[in-house]
This record gives sequence, structure tokens and C-alpha cells, in this order.
Amino acid sequence: MASSSPCEPLFLGIDGGGTKCKALLVDSEQRVLGEGEGGPANPYHGYERSCESIVNAADQALKAAGFAPQIKAKLNVGLGLAGLHLPSQLKKMQAWDHPFKRAVFTNDLHIACIAAHENDDGAVIVAGTGSCGFAHVNGKTLTLGAHGIPCGDKGSGAWLGLSAIQAVLLASDGLGPASSLQSLVEDRLQAKGLLIVDRLNGASSNEFAKLAPLVIHAAENNDSVALNIVRDGAEYLSQMALRLLELEPPRISMLGGISAVISQWMHPEVQAKLSPALKSAEYGAVHLVRAQLETLGAVITN
Amino acid sequence: MASSSPCEPLFLGIDGGGTKCKALLVDSEQRVLGEGEGGPANPYHGYERSCESIVNAADQALKAAGFAPQIKAKLNVGLGLAGLHLPSQLKKMQAWDHPFKRAVFTNDLHIACIAAHENDDGAVIVAGTGSCGFAHVNGKTLTLGAHGIPCGDKGSGAWLGLSAIQAVLLASDGLGPASSLQSLVEDRLQAKGLLIVDRLNGASSNEFAKLAPLVIHAAENNDSVALNIVRDGAEYLSQMALRLLELEPPRISMLGGISAVISQWMHPEVQAKLSPALKSAEYGAVHLVRAQLETLGAVITN
Repeated sequence: MASSSPCEPLFLGIDGGGTKCKALLVDSEQRVLGEGEGGPANPYHGYERSCESIVNAADQALKAAGFAPQIKAKLNVGLGLAGLHLPSQLKKMQAWDHPFKRAVFTNDLHIACIAAHENDDGAVIVAGTGSCGFAHVNGKTLTLGAHGIPCGDKGSGAWLGLSAIQAVLLASDGLGPASSLQSLVEDRLQAKGLLIVDRLNGASSNEFAKLAPLVIHAAENNDSVALNIVRDGAEYLSQMALRLLELEPPRISMLGGISAVISQWMHPEVQAKLSPALKSAEYGAVHLVRAQLETLGAVITN
Repeated sequence: MASSSPCEPLFLGIDGGGTKCKALLVDSEQRVLGEGEGGPANPYHGYERSCESIVNAADQALKAAGFAPQIKAKLNVGLGLAGLHLPSQLKKMQAWDHPFKRAVFTNDLHIACIAAHENDDGAVIVAGTGSCGFAHVNGKTLTLGAHGIPCGDKGSGAWLGLSAIQAVLLASDGLGPASSLQSLVEDRLQAKGLLIVDRLNGASSNEFAKLAPLVIHAAENNDSVALNIVRDGAEYLSQMALRLLELEPPRISMLGGISAVISQWMHPEVQAKLSPALKSAEYGAVHLVRAQLETLGAVITN
């Protein structure tokens, strides 16, 4: 096989989150052949939709590489999905009659940590739609948070949005301080008071997370209600980081769509310890399935 | 018609909450003919189930009165349901192809307030599965709260249960103080840490409210985490009462399954102002539909 042709076996890494799902197609020489993106892939919030998002992302990556969708049946796929830290969700995904040759499932934290430290020991804090922490040090792992809203996920996008709604509703009743969040939220949702509750009936984490930029904006403009919310969330993330650092990971990274903005309110000593992620999470997913193939004694290059 | 026989028209009052639905059957002379009970009747949490609960409660009341279920078609029904403060929910229920002669819909707060003060002006605070406040004074009304979890409902059963879960999950991660709530919740749910999140996937307000007695129990035993939760909830209810008292209602009552226990942590000056409800909410629902019939000029006694 010519060096410019993809070397089989082919690997696909999937990083599935509450908002979107990313796919990375590589050959056995680690050459990137294509990338793809799909919709939400957290089975806790919707199993059917997650499967669909994964297949869409895979098809896109194959298309970008110039392959037909049928090549899916040749792919060795590593999948790190939000929600799979829950045993029930992991079991559900493992039972999926997927279209791939092989699929290895784990949670999104696991692949993010593998990738952030290029397969080495380390810790990660994620502040995206949800929030959580993970460390892998000397063969031991620790998972923190990942409780979802309403039970947890402090400092996440969904939690920032939900906290803003709570503050706005209290203020609407004259039972909480007024703030610029009120008009920001009312304008965005085109609703006031009880109509906000009506609008958000059954709202997903994603829908709450869409309001997070309003809270960040108000906090950056010194709105005291918004500042209290972001400081409260950032304090939780700092405490999470300190707990992970007790395990003495060689590196710690912060990931997720909210991390860049919320980290400014975290403890300075924690901020100083944060290192950038070395690879994106899809690489961790590829590593995972490669490692499993190697363990199985399969011939990687044929 | 003999005075001991029921005088038509017949009236049915329905008080529908997040946990159960109560029915009261009276004749035109206000004589109680029968009572019934059904399941949850908050359409915000399930429209089909609410309709079913209402019909079940009505059938039970008819049975208790010795009437056949077919008599439903003769009933003038007043319904005060949780969730109907939301325009979308009110509209949905009004479109119901119900089995009654006539149905008048309003929210549960409205009928509770009418009943608590025997059709007179007044205010009510409700702390049951959810929490809310309502006042009707000199033709003006004010509704507070009724935001549901996760957006609001502080001091309610559902909020106490949710707050307990949040505290237990923080403690499980070593990111919050330990408390007796941990073993109480773990024993009740037969789950620990992330398995609690798994167990509560998609949990309703009712399911969270079932945990409220654990929080009250722990608080009464001076558990500081539980005490902080109930004090926080009670403070909200006190502030709600003070806001309602600004309207100078002649009376104010506190209703709902949590009210008797949580009121002990409310402001003493608020506690001192609370008067018992004079009638139960079903009477308010009966009053509502009677008043509408009278407005329509219908002959009440025939």
C-alpha cells in the first residue's frame, strides 16, 4: 500500500457532548483522514438522538475523507459520550446495534483526560453544558460532579442559565434584587414572569446553557446578581480542581465551552496550575479503541 | 323533591395538586353527598394523567354518594388545578373534551384562597409539592412563586428533596459538608453517588417531594446541613408572606402538606398572623362554578 493511501485498520474517535458530537477519522499511521460533526450525543438526554448524532458525525468524517458511508462497517470506533459515567446509560449504549465494525464506549471525561495529556496521567475539569472533574493518576481514577442539572453541575453553562432564571423570577416577584439579567433574559425568551416558566417547561440542559452568555456578559459588566452567580460557580470549580490536585496529577487542564470565561473567577493558584489540553478529546477516543485492539492482539497494520 | 334527596343541580369541586386530586360532590343546598380522590392533576407535569385523575376522583365521589358514573354528565364542575396559572396549561385544560355538563377551570391557588377565607378577601401561602402565594384583596389579585422546580418553588416539598440530593452529592464528592442526610437519602433510594443521579433521571416534583420528610427529620435532629436547607426555604416563605401582607388582606392562611412543619422556621411575626383555613380548597372550586352559574342567570334550584 502506498504511503499516501490510508493504512487499515481505520479508526474513528467520537467525542459526544450535550450540545454536539465530533468525529475524527484516522488511519493506522495516525494520519487524519477526515472530521465530522453531529448533534447532541448524551444518551441520558435522549438515546435515539445520540445514536443518530454519532452516525451523522461518522458519515460526515467519511465524506470528508472521500469514502462512501458503507465504509462505516470497517471502522474501529472509540466513543466517549457525556452521560456514560452512569451505569444505566453505558449499558444502553453498549446494547446499541451500531453500524460499525467495533465500538468501545466510555464517558467523555475519560477520553478528554487521555487526550489532554497525550495518553499520560493527568486531570481535567470540564465546564461546558455540564460540569465535572476527572483524574487518572498511577492507575487510580477519580470522577467528581457530572450530576446534571438540577442536581448539580455548578459552574456549567446549564447551571449559569438556570441560576439566571431563578434570579429573574425572584426579582419579578419583588422577592430578590433587581438586575440587568431581567431585561436580558426577558428579551431573549420574549417572555416575562410566569410566561418564562411556561416557555421553559421541560427545557433541556442545552436550552438553559444557551442563556449562559447573558450571565457572563452581565457579570463582566459588574451586575452584582450575575457576579454572585459566576463567583459561586467558579468557587465550585476551584474546589473541584483542588480536590483533583490532591492526587498530584502531573498536569491539569480545563475544557469545555464555558472554561475560558469562567476560569477568570477561579482561585488564582488554580488558574496558575492549568495547562492547555495537548489534543482534543476525539484523539482520546481513537487512543482508547486502538489500545483495546492492541490488547486483543490484533494486527494494527496489515 | 324531598329535603333529604339531593337537590339539583349537582356541583363537583376538584382540587388538583401535584400529588393528588380531591373531589367534593354537593347538591344545590350545599349538602355534601360524597368525596373522592385521584392521582396527580397538574397538567404541566402530564395532561393525560391529570384528566384521568380528575375523572377517577369524580367517579369515587359519585360512588360514595350512591350515584352511577353516568351522572357525571349532569355535574357542574369547578376545577382548581396546579399549573393553571400558566396560560398554556389553562388553554390546554379548557380544550379538554370532558365528561361533565359544565367545567370551569382556574388554578389551585385561586380556589384555595376562596375557600380559606370563605369566599372573602384574603391571602394564602402554599407549601406542598410546590410553593406559591396568592392574595385577593379589594378586587386585586397577586400571585407569587409557582415557578416549579428547578426554577423556583423554594420551601416546597420538591425543593427540600432536591436540595437534599444536591447536598448529598456534594458531600459524596468531598466538596460539601457531611451530614446525616447522606445515609438517610442513600437508604431511601438504595443508591450512592452517581447511582443517585441515575436513579433520579427525569424524576418528577413528586419524587423529589417524597424525600422532604427526611430533610425535616434531620433538621429536627439539628443536622446543620438540613437546618440550612429548611431555614433557607422558610425564609423565602416568610418573605412571600410579608409581600402578600403589604396588600393588607383581612386574613392569611398557610396550606399544603409541608406548611405545618416548615412554618416553625418562619419569622415569628408571620407565624403570629397565620389563621387556619376555614374550608378546604374543594369548597372554593364549588363556589367558583356556582358563582358562574349564577352569573349566567341559571336557576340554581329546580
